[in-house]
Parts: sequence; structure tokens; C-alpha cells
Amino acid sequence: MKAGEYDMKKYRVGLIRVLTTDDTQLMQMHGALIEQYFPMLQVESRCIPDQPEGIHDDQTMALGAPKVVAMAKEMWQEGFDAIIVSCAGDPGVAQARQAVPIPVIGAGESTAALCMFYGSHPAVLGITEDVPAGYQQVFGDHIVDNARGKGVESVLDLMTPQGYSATVEQAQRQKQLGADVIALSCTGMSSIQIAPALERETGLPVLDPVMCEGLMTLFELIRKDARTQ
Amino acid sequence: MKAGEYDMKKYRVGLIRVLTTDDTQLMQMHGALIEQYFPMLQVESRCIPDQPEGIHDDQTMALGAPKVVAMAKEMWQEGFDAIIVSCAGDPGVAQARQAVPIPVIGAGESTAALCMFYGSHPAVLGITEDVPAGYQQVFGDHIVDNARGKGVESVLDLMTPQGYSATVEQAQRQKQLGADVIALSCTGMSSIQIAPALERETGLPVLDPVMCEGLMTLFELIRKDARTQ
Repeated sequence: MKAGEYDMKKYRVGLIRVLTTDDTQLMQMHGALIEQYFPMLQVESRCIPDQPEGIHDDQTMALGAPKVVAMAKEMWQEGFDAIIVSCAGDPGVAQARQAVPIPVIGAGESTAALCMFYGSHPAVLGITEDVPAGYQQVFGDHIVDNARGKGVESVLDLMTPQGYSATVEQAQRQKQLGADVIALSCTGMSSIQIAPALERETGLPVLDPVMCEGLMTLFELIRKDARTQ
Repeated sequence: MKAGEYDMKKYRVGLIRVLTTDDTQLMQMHGALIEQYFPMLQVESRCIPDQPEGIHDDQTMALGAPKVVAMAKEMWQEGFDAIIVSCAGDPGVAQARQAVPIPVIGAGESTAALCMFYGSHPAVLGITEDVPAGYQQVFGDHIVDNARGKGVESVLDLMTPQGYSATVEQAQRQKQLGADVIALSCTGMSSIQIAPALERETGLPVLDPVMCEGLMTLFELIRKDARTQ
């Protein structure tokens, strides 16, 4: 065993799911992935109440965002070091950031920013008709394309062989359109680990929102440490 | 001790310094910072030969870039998992990426991309007159300002009280010009840990190139693992 591993700093991160579910494994999946990628992050996941269909349009966004802010406040009061809002729509992220003095990180803004490392012609691939705000803000009019697989309107659709093939087809079409990086725009696509498969299919970098939110959380925590040391 | 710490994956990273020096502590400083921030990265630093003034203009860039590529090839052949080119000018990074099948990460491209998480009006603060290519490519005409402290032309100048104050003044001026994030454009500024001090002085996020290159290296390694598993 190497020196330094005993005292590896652990950060306590609260992860907010915007889908109400009793399925513990489903609820904890994003947190488990983040702990696997970044062993210094110890993640506790919770879901907002009374939103069994998650956040997928303006109405569910308006309903969900204040719940995210309230939960971020609770988690801050309980002593968490940072808050992840594990949804590519970044619901309540800007407001939560005003409400608590710890880092608040959204999946969408993280994924979009990290795309800029790879190219200047990003495409957005998800399950919604609209481009989420965080992607629009970073990409502006450089967006090559926004798409979802034909017939894919939910994460459940993605998990069928048809939905999966339809998503691969869209990724290949985006490459033909000149995309040099693909930003996935739904954290449900992280649950099924489709990013590495799409990378193998297209040869393009395809960014996974849960990996991106974890990376930016680690960055924020290390930056905060450096600032307060 | 918590489960999982025994078997934390360690990645072996080669870090290329573009300044020739016999001062071991100076040569290893960026690597030591990265190991401190990211304990899963084990960094070995080497400097390119016969370039005691580093890379700071077109001529030294033309001279240094092929040396970076040659050293990246050597390190790949020796079994390193990734290569960091620890210079904000990203010398030889694009060419090295063509030459070796492992991730190659430059400080400049990393810092510029990560800025996009924080704002859309970035300023560049360094020790050179020109904006390094990686920053120009990501920021385009969104750059609010490019500056160096008055009288600051080398890292040595930064280390004097006058150089330090002059740099703080420029950061404050950049904030007044409307910058919402400051990208440091010299890894020598990481050696003296000026980013956290500038954050405290200005209240703006100020990104440290060595921290950024470390973060993007970790990202590339985790992405590669996900793709090949």
C-alpha cells in the first residue's frame, strides 16, 4: 500500500434526483457511478417529492426547481460539502447557488463546458425536443444539431433494442453533419452507460452527464480547498 | 479505514516541462501539485532538453514542439497511461496526440474549456503579450481582455512584491471590464499559487492551469477506462 491512501480526503456530496422513486437502486445509481469514477467523493442521493415523472418540460421544471432549492438548503444545513443536481436541465441550480454557500453543480452546465475541450462543433443528443438551457448557453449558435432517437421519448424507450439503435443512428447522423463532439443531454443516458458505446460506434467523444457533473464537483471542491487554505 | 481505498486505481502520468532545468524541486512542482489534488494520478516529470528559457515566443515554440512530441513518444513506449504538456501554450499537443495512442493533455486547452463552466466573458491573465492558441480557440471573440501585470515578463517578475501587486491590479481591472472568469495563461502562475489569492482579491473564479490540466487528465483516463471496459 502506498503512502497517502490512508488519509485521502473524502468529500461528502449530496446528490439530488429530480425523479421521485422508491426504487433505491435506481435512486442511487448516479451516486454509485460517481463514487466509482471519483473515490474521493462520498455521495448521498435523495429525490425530490411528488414528481414521479421527473422534469421533462416547462411545467415539471417550474414545479421541480423550488423543490431542488429547498433540498439543497436542507443538505447544506446537514453539513454536505457540495450539491449535485443530477439532471441535464439544471433545474433550480442557479437559484440554489444563491441560496447556499457551498458549490452547487448541474449536469447540463458541466457537460456543455467540458465539450469545449474536444471541439467547436458540438451536437446535443438526448430524449427531449428542446436543447436544455445550460447547453444552449455554452454552445450558442455553434450547435450542429439537437436530436433524440426516433421513437425515443423517455429513458425507458432508450432501454429497448429499437430505442438504442435509433439513438446510435442519430449519433452517426450528427457525425455526418460535422459534429466533433456529442453532448448527451439526459442523465438517464448515464444510467444505461450509453456514452462509451456511442464512442465506439462513432469514433467521436461522447460526454456522459453523470461523469461530467462528478468531475466538475471534484474541481469545485478542490478549488474551494485551495481558496480557504 | 474505508473499503475501496486499498484498491484505488492509480494512473501513471508523464508530465512534460518545457523548461530545461536541473532544479529537481522546480521541475517536479507541477507534478507534486497534481498528485496532491488528484491522489489517483501518479506523476513523473521530465523536461525537454536544451531549452533553459522555456517556451515564450514563436521561435522557442517552433524549437520546443518537436521535442515535446519526441518525449511523449518515449513516455508512451515506457508505459505511461497519459501525457500532460504542462505549458499554457500547448506546444506540440496536437502533434503528440497524432503520434501516440494515449491521452495527451495541454494546460491551455484545459483551462480555457473549464472557464466555460463559469461564464461567457472570460479574461486572460498571464505573462505574455499574445493570447495562447488554446484560449483563442475556445474563447473566440468573447475574450474581454488579455493582460499581464505591468513590468511582468517572466515568472521571476511575478514572485516580486511589485510583480504580484501589478498582477492583482490587472485582475481587478479585468473584473471592472466585465470579466466573469479569469483564465491564467502561464503554468508558472500555478507554481506560485496565485489563483486562490486572486480569487480572494476579486471575488471572481480564477482558473489555475496546473489544476485544470490535472482535472482533464483524470477525465480522459476515466473516459478511456469506460470505453475499454
